[in-house]
Amino acid sequence: MNQLLYLRIINNLCALMLSKNKIKFIRSLAIKRERYTHQNFIIEGEKIVREAIEFGLPIGEVIALESYVDKFGSFPIIPASKKDMERCSSLKNAPGVLAVLPFIEWKELDLKKGKYILLDGLNDPGNLGTIIRIADWFSIDAVICSSDSVDVYNQKVVQSSMGSVFRVPVYYRDLKEMISSSSLPVFAAAMEGKDFSSFSFPDSGMLLMGSESHGISEDLLAEIDHKITIPRLGEAESLNVSVATGILCQAFTVKRQMIND
Amino acid sequence: MNQLLYLRIINNLCALMLSKNKIKFIRSLAIKRERYTHQNFIIEGEKIVREAIEFGLPIGEVIALESYVDKFGSFPIIPASKKDMERCSSLKNAPGVLAVLPFIEWKELDLKKGKYILLDGLNDPGNLGTIIRIADWFSIDAVICSSDSVDVYNQKVVQSSMGSVFRVPVYYRDLKEMISSSSLPVFAAAMEGKDFSSFSFPDSGMLLMGSESHGISEDLLAEIDHKITIPRLGEAESLNVSVATGILCQAFTVKRQMIND
Repeated sequence: MNQLLYLRIINNLCALMLSKNKIKFIRSLAIKRERYTHQNFIIEGEKIVREAIEFGLPIGEVIALESYVDKFGSFPIIPASKKDMERCSSLKNAPGVLAVLPFIEWKELDLKKGKYILLDGLNDPGNLGTIIRIADWFSIDAVICSSDSVDVYNQKVVQSSMGSVFRVPVYYRDLKEMISSSSLPVFAAAMEGKDFSSFSFPDSGMLLMGSESHGISEDLLAEIDHKITIPRLGEAESLNVSVATGILCQAFTVKRQMIND
Repeated sequence: MNQLLYLRIINNLCALMLSKNKIKFIRSLAIKRERYTHQNFIIEGEKIVREAIEFGLPIGEVIALESYVDKFGSFPIIPASKKDMERCSSLKNAPGVLAVLPFIEWKELDLKKGKYILLDGLNDPGNLGTIIRIADWFSIDAVICSSDSVDVYNQKVVQSSMGSVFRVPVYYRDLKEMISSSSLPVFAAAMEGKDFSSFSFPDSGMLLMGSESHGISEDLLAEIDHKITIPRLGEAESLNVSVATGILCQAFTVKRQMIND
């Protein structure tokens, strides 16, 4: 065997081995700063990894238990022990497979028309993931978060979105600046708003949701065109923010369908 | 000082001390079997403990950091160190206060009329808590879970219900048996159902939600009077079960309001 061929084989083998450095790198992506330095994030579990492959996303690396290696056809997999999977995973129960993905590139945000969800200071990752899934279900054009909201590539956001992070563009913006520079109407969920069921949702617009703990920021209040509310019949102090977003999104988007019918 | 008085003082002091056995007991209530043996559960955090006190619930014990002791007026508090709070708490960040509560007693379930949410095999505690909160917001009469659903006194259920566990009766039943013995109509969320927005919800009835992973059990399908669905406009495979429950509950309950108006 000539030396060049030998080196090539060694190289290929090394690329398909889970080194300590690779484990360290994967673990580091649990931290937001590291994710943004490397512009990479982690997806965990068979379903979402399969979806990313089918989506044709430029997957960096797939790491899996030996028993999973055959499940992904010709896709190159780095085999790992159960212990190494636990080292790499940020889930309570490490799944059999995870992958490293580069950040998803979305086209420049164009706010001339369309339906948008704006999230002001949302800090619960499960809620953000669930809202991205709602946006995907109701065909919302994008989710736009205030800069202090939880990161979309946070592991819990990615998991609770159930693959919708691959389909729904999520942007981080100064909401005040963005709203001022757009002509789209803004309607916000607020306790003292008008009953949403009698509100005539426009074809294009932005549904603004505040955080559960602090509501909508003081400096955004002046930018709101309409305040809407989900009337309370019982005693609870509030609804979960993703549940409220779901109820309002349904009303926001169903109109389009009625017009189209 | 006579001996009897002396013993009484010692007794009172001991009752207000956090012994190792008490910590062990509190920790044990994180396990369902232990909760049901002792018929007790834990609430954590200032807001929910305050709410339980205001509600007049028969609180067993309140354990709190020294700095919290004065916050609860004349209510007897067992002072604890930060380390002991961490030992007692099942939350990631131990709060400054927690309390032991006996199981809440609800009156016998009477299914002649009313609005009910039925949950079949719901196993995510966050979802159950959020659905109890939805039931509280929309004044649903009770939440009835299949026996294999997650326990209502699970710490995460209690926390995510935001105090609504104190107001919404939650029962565990054999759903098939219960539905057969009631004359109330059953409408279930199902992919292949009728658009809920054109469904005429009855004044009394049961909204049946399946689990996210397995849908509605085979043996319940025959008991359903109407299948309803939330039409999908986009690509997501499904909605989160608590979001779907919120959307359907709003439609289920708003009618009552329109009739009353």
